[in-house]
Amino acid sequence: MEAPRITFIGAGNVATHLVRAFHDAGAEVVQVCARTPEHARQLAESVGAEAITDPGKADPSVDFCIVCVGDSAVADVARRLPLMHGIVVHTSGSVEMDVLRCASARVGVLYPLQTFSRERSLDVSRVPFFTEGSDADVLAAIDALASLVCGSVAHADSAHRQYLHVAGVLGCNFPNYLIGCAIDMLAAAGYGAEVLRPLVEETVAKVFDAGATAAQTGPARRGDVATIEKHRAMLPEGEACIYDMLSRAIMAKYNNGNEQN
Amino acid sequence: MEAPRITFIGAGNVATHLVRAFHDAGAEVVQVCARTPEHARQLAESVGAEAITDPGKADPSVDFCIVCVGDSAVADVARRLPLMHGIVVHTSGSVEMDVLRCASARVGVLYPLQTFSRERSLDVSRVPFFTEGSDADVLAAIDALASLVCGSVAHADSAHRQYLHVAGVLGCNFPNYLIGCAIDMLAAAGYGAEVLRPLVEETVAKVFDAGATAAQTGPARRGDVATIEKHRAMLPEGEACIYDMLSRAIMAKYNNGNEQN
Repeated sequence: MEAPRITFIGAGNVATHLVRAFHDAGAEVVQVCARTPEHARQLAESVGAEAITDPGKADPSVDFCIVCVGDSAVADVARRLPLMHGIVVHTSGSVEMDVLRCASARVGVLYPLQTFSRERSLDVSRVPFFTEGSDADVLAAIDALASLVCGSVAHADSAHRQYLHVAGVLGCNFPNYLIGCAIDMLAAAGYGAEVLRPLVEETVAKVFDAGATAAQTGPARRGDVATIEKHRAMLPEGEACIYDMLSRAIMAKYNNGNEQN
Repeated sequence: MEAPRITFIGAGNVATHLVRAFHDAGAEVVQVCARTPEHARQLAESVGAEAITDPGKADPSVDFCIVCVGDSAVADVARRLPLMHGIVVHTSGSVEMDVLRCASARVGVLYPLQTFSRERSLDVSRVPFFTEGSDADVLAAIDALASLVCGSVAHADSAHRQYLHVAGVLGCNFPNYLIGCAIDMLAAAGYGAEVLRPLVEETVAKVFDAGATAAQTGPARRGDVATIEKHRAMLPEGEACIYDMLSRAIMAKYNNGNEQN
């Protein structure tokens, strides 16, 4: 693929990482658009691009326009874009491809299954990307674009992408919340978060190596109601309800089977 | 510390790893006791120890008797031990030290905050151990014992150990369950578990490096009720309730603040 010319709409966590990754891969980032002029300028300058604050000023001649904004803003951005000659994609897990059709005849999706933070370095080449395109040629062009920066590309239409997004919430957002509750419990007893890190890292290694069923341990797994009651009593009301509901789900799944922790 | 002589009661996941770790560290594992003769024999033979099936046959002269059985069996094992001259410890998160007092005047706890599987290799030297002792000398002896195999020893009486145990359930058992649900969702859409692994690994790195609050992303974090409703509708009833409860907890914690995913 000849070095593609790209306009990015957005300068948030995802955009920041993708702008850098595509620039490093030899693509020409032509414009970076963000509502806040300073955000647009900073990210644009880092790759020698033009900073814009109005999607209506996007260059219609670019090969790709990557709309990298919050899920709820994608449709609005698409309506404000000029009619683009190239391919317009968004990067959202929960937004249908079709909201982009007002901006181009050739549209698609480039969804990275990862959690991005501006200030954390991240190896984009290890991120799985999921693509969708409005026709086979468009899809092939988006796949080729993705291949510039990542090692793994698979296809996902809007329905499949919903499954990926739910999996991301269950596998990332909720565990993050629960690990946060765990760290709060440790702090209440005077321990630092680091004492929990080997356990959590081993948990993750185990669930992917052996599967969640083989890896499940704990009071609920062995139907240890006495311990569950003790733990409930130690937690604030909201967390006690969560503890209870997850314990009951695990007990139901394993039918209170006996197993040593 | 002179090489301690140790009897292990138990041949399950935890016992298997500790027997090997103490043997490798130069301790003399004298006996391994398990109800199933074959389990006792296999583990005992691997370190040149005697296999026994009755805790009543434990050698009263050993320096340490480590009771490494399921939480609900610790008290029963203690009642069946002969009166031991050395120190008797258990390895359970949720059992009080005092249930051991019928077996020795010197008792304590050696609690490893980790999830053990017999068939997975594990670097015990990275596991944090938490100790308790019936007096200062006993505690010092248990600390020295733990130091043979692990790099990090801290103290935790029964109350503090409960906090550690709850943190383990919140940070390990529940995330394992949720990641399992996520993998099921991926399978329903035709994707393998591996597409989720970079996301989960980054989630764990981020929560310990930046803290759970900074690391929290997702629909609930940004108060995206429309996406939450869509996700709920895709999940089986039980998981939909869990999705709902965790989403509401996150929304409550962050007061529906706005942030881009």
